[in-house]
Amino acid sequence: MGQNLALNIAEKGFPISVYNRTTSKVDETVERAKKEGNLPLYGFHDPESFVNSIQKPRVIIMLVKAGAPVDATIKTLSDYLEKGDCIIDGGNEWYENTERREKAMEEKGLLYLGMGVSGGEEGARNGPSMMPGGSYEAYKNIEDILLKVAAQVPDSGPCVTYIGKGGSGNFVKMVHNGIEYGDMQLIAEAYDVLKSVGKLSNEELKDVFTEWNKGELLSFLVEITADIFGIKDDKGEGHLVDKVLDKTGMKGTGKWTVQQAADLSIAAPTIAASLDSRFLSGLKEERVIAAKVFNAGGVEDSLSNQVVDKKKLIDDVRQALYASKICSYAQGMNLIRAKSEEKGWDLKLGELARIWKGGCIIRAIFLDRIKKAYDRDANLANLLIDPEFSKEMIERQSAWRRVVCLAVSSGISTPGMSSSLAYFDSYRRDRLPANLVQAQRDYFGAHTYERVDIPGSYHTEWFKLAKHSKI
Amino acid sequence: MGQNLALNIAEKGFPISVYNRTTSKVDETVERAKKEGNLPLYGFHDPESFVNSIQKPRVIIMLVKAGAPVDATIKTLSDYLEKGDCIIDGGNEWYENTERREKAMEEKGLLYLGMGVSGGEEGARNGPSMMPGGSYEAYKNIEDILLKVAAQVPDSGPCVTYIGKGGSGNFVKMVHNGIEYGDMQLIAEAYDVLKSVGKLSNEELKDVFTEWNKGELLSFLVEITADIFGIKDDKGEGHLVDKVLDKTGMKGTGKWTVQQAADLSIAAPTIAASLDSRFLSGLKEERVIAAKVFNAGGVEDSLSNQVVDKKKLIDDVRQALYASKICSYAQGMNLIRAKSEEKGWDLKLGELARIWKGGCIIRAIFLDRIKKAYDRDANLANLLIDPEFSKEMIERQSAWRRVVCLAVSSGISTPGMSSSLAYFDSYRRDRLPANLVQAQRDYFGAHTYERVDIPGSYHTEWFKLAKHSKI
Repeated sequence: MGQNLALNIAEKGFPISVYNRTTSKVDETVERAKKEGNLPLYGFHDPESFVNSIQKPRVIIMLVKAGAPVDATIKTLSDYLEKGDCIIDGGNEWYENTERREKAMEEKGLLYLGMGVSGGEEGARNGPSMMPGGSYEAYKNIEDILLKVAAQVPDSGPCVTYIGKGGSGNFVKMVHNGIEYGDMQLIAEAYDVLKSVGKLSNEELKDVFTEWNKGELLSFLVEITADIFGIKDDKGEGHLVDKVLDKTGMKGTGKWTVQQAADLSIAAPTIAASLDSRFLSGLKEERVIAAKVFNAGGVEDSLSNQVVDKKKLIDDVRQALYASKICSYAQGMNLIRAKSEEKGWDLKLGELARIWKGGCIIRAIFLDRIKKAYDRDANLANLLIDPEFSKEMIERQSAWRRVVCLAVSSGISTPGMSSSLAYFDSYRRDRLPANLVQAQRDYFGAHTYERVDIPGSYHTEWFKLAKHSKI
Repeated sequence: MGQNLALNIAEKGFPISVYNRTTSKVDETVERAKKEGNLPLYGFHDPESFVNSIQKPRVIIMLVKAGAPVDATIKTLSDYLEKGDCIIDGGNEWYENTERREKAMEEKGLLYLGMGVSGGEEGARNGPSMMPGGSYEAYKNIEDILLKVAAQVPDSGPCVTYIGKGGSGNFVKMVHNGIEYGDMQLIAEAYDVLKSVGKLSNEELKDVFTEWNKGELLSFLVEITADIFGIKDDKGEGHLVDKVLDKTGMKGTGKWTVQQAADLSIAAPTIAASLDSRFLSGLKEERVIAAKVFNAGGVEDSLSNQVVDKKKLIDDVRQALYASKICSYAQGMNLIRAKSEEKGWDLKLGELARIWKGGCIIRAIFLDRIKKAYDRDANLANLLIDPEFSKEMIERQSAWRRVVCLAVSSGISTPGMSSSLAYFDSYRRDRLPANLVQAQRDYFGAHTYERVDIPGSYHTEWFKLAKHSKI
């Protein structure tokens, strides 16, 4: 990723020095720069000459593994840095580490940015989405480069903006990844329902996702999903997707997103369901055993082998996917806002939606609607109640309910879609059964309760009253 | 709670000294001890005479707010303690704090226990469930007292056992509370479906829960739920439960449980759904607005006003509640096991189920089945595949699916029941759609994948192949 980003920067006409502890990687990058059009990229084999080669105030973008390697790299570089120089961490770092480092750097007169970069290898080379947070001064020093290096979206500009102070860039990138987990899970569920209940072939699935990618679901992830269904297995018969083991890896940002949501009292069930699905996917051996236990018990047989109208099902699933996606983004956005309020970051949700429109993994035409929702009302409590989105939810809810019910009665789990629907149905409910939970808490723990009709805090001796009424 | 526990100990014939910074509380406790039968309880107004009054090796049970107050109390007491003395923290403390304190105490030759205590005020007085973890030596010093003070369950003994080393007692109590969140949420959903779809009155609900409390659902929480539906409002017409505001408070252990599950890669969707439901319950004002937005959009009208057979519905909901509960406990138990493995605590899951059978908030006849499942196989991968439980799941799954579908199509959210069902349907599935997620990850991030047919790790140039096939 570092190599690709360096080539991207050089290609935009900015001379760049590169350094890596592994000298062969430096040479390889220099070689690629030559091949890809004699780009102004210069390789260095030691940190001192690397740092000295950079024009002051120096800006160094670091792409190393999060955690200890970042600290080690900072240590190596800062021996040669001078006041006003800046280091940018482009990795998926935990935001508090960035805040600690920014403070330490500041004490030495150095500047620091934690910059989430999304887009994978391809995005880094051709235009990623970048989320720089930390020193505003440092951002201004490199802004002209970032604006050109970022993905460019017509009518909406480069996919980069100064996010905010401290670790806000890392935090926003973390939630971006959490939303990415949600999108991938929801697409996987759509696939599962279409394949397992609708009995669609890979060819049909390819056509469905290709078609979906022309409408409201137009997005990088839907596009690559269509691609995937078209790839034949090079090691055997049939399609490659059917040979891929159903075990999903993960690298930490999804977990952090779920933990932060809990910390900030934000319901993020779609993202949590995506994480749980990855955990359960990892239990392949246990699942194979459980499948035997329950199939032997007749579970599969007793699940209705529903006869479905394929065309109608495809249309329903598209709507379910879209409605679930709105819920997932609503959760992610509210998580960012809650953190922004806690930390005083003053993040602009609409601007975040804008820089996610291109370059990154969750890029989608849909993000333009989110941007517009926050343009209409920057303080929108929840995306669901935006006039446009609420209209879309109302139009899609019947299809959505049909898909979830079909999955439930067919024994196909759709944790993402059904937790999204539960989120929607809880959020739009003026009266939840939480009164009973609070009554229970007051019964056994004297936690008190409020009333719907009179202000104040109340405690009732439920136990005594109940005993009395029994006598 | 401290007062009640002290009275409980004195009542069992163990002379006890009590101390509180607020002297009136000490006097009040002494007064109660007199009233409740001249119990051997002695009050002290300063820490020094309090400590000196205790027989060596001293054992002091501390019930103060978790966090800083615990550290402050330890500091106050340890000035007067001598080698071999012990402090027990009976609060809901974060397990790592207990481990830090145990270490610091050890350096001074003092012993330490973190002991989760469940049962509320009433349990503390008449027999709680206690989960002591930390110094085994300290446990042995007080074991004879704990065994008598704990709730006593016929054929199963006192609800206390030495949990394990370090912060294991706090950790187990934390998960106990997470499970408690799940139980309460599932009961609230059962209430919601019966009331909102089944149109049951409070009297009918009282009868239903009273009836349920005679069978497999027999438990403290179902019992108090029945009680709650019987309480009339003392400030107006009708039943009190209808006047209680639908906003649920929380105190941290549920949040920790969800965060620990994420940390340990354990899917705990039922517990997470319960936490999210508490968060959403707190957004009362937003929900009232959202309800208006969506009702105006015709959501309520378009939800089918299903005609239901009350008797059948009640029976279905009972089964859905029970099946969901099994999933929730499976999650909690697996979370405890994962932590036990990480920390080398060697926790005995069956023994934990045993000490939860009485005294605590989640006490239930159901826990005896869990104990027996682990007696049959201590290494059971998941409660779901235990022969008894799997049979119960198979018997109940049709009813469970009917309830979730009915809720989904009626616009009633059942996040706990539906995430439990998704957990079940994911866990019993030998092939999940995670293959697509992993293919996507390999497509955009070169994360590699395994295959179902050949060992090894693979990477495919999906993008290039897809482009090629498009030409």
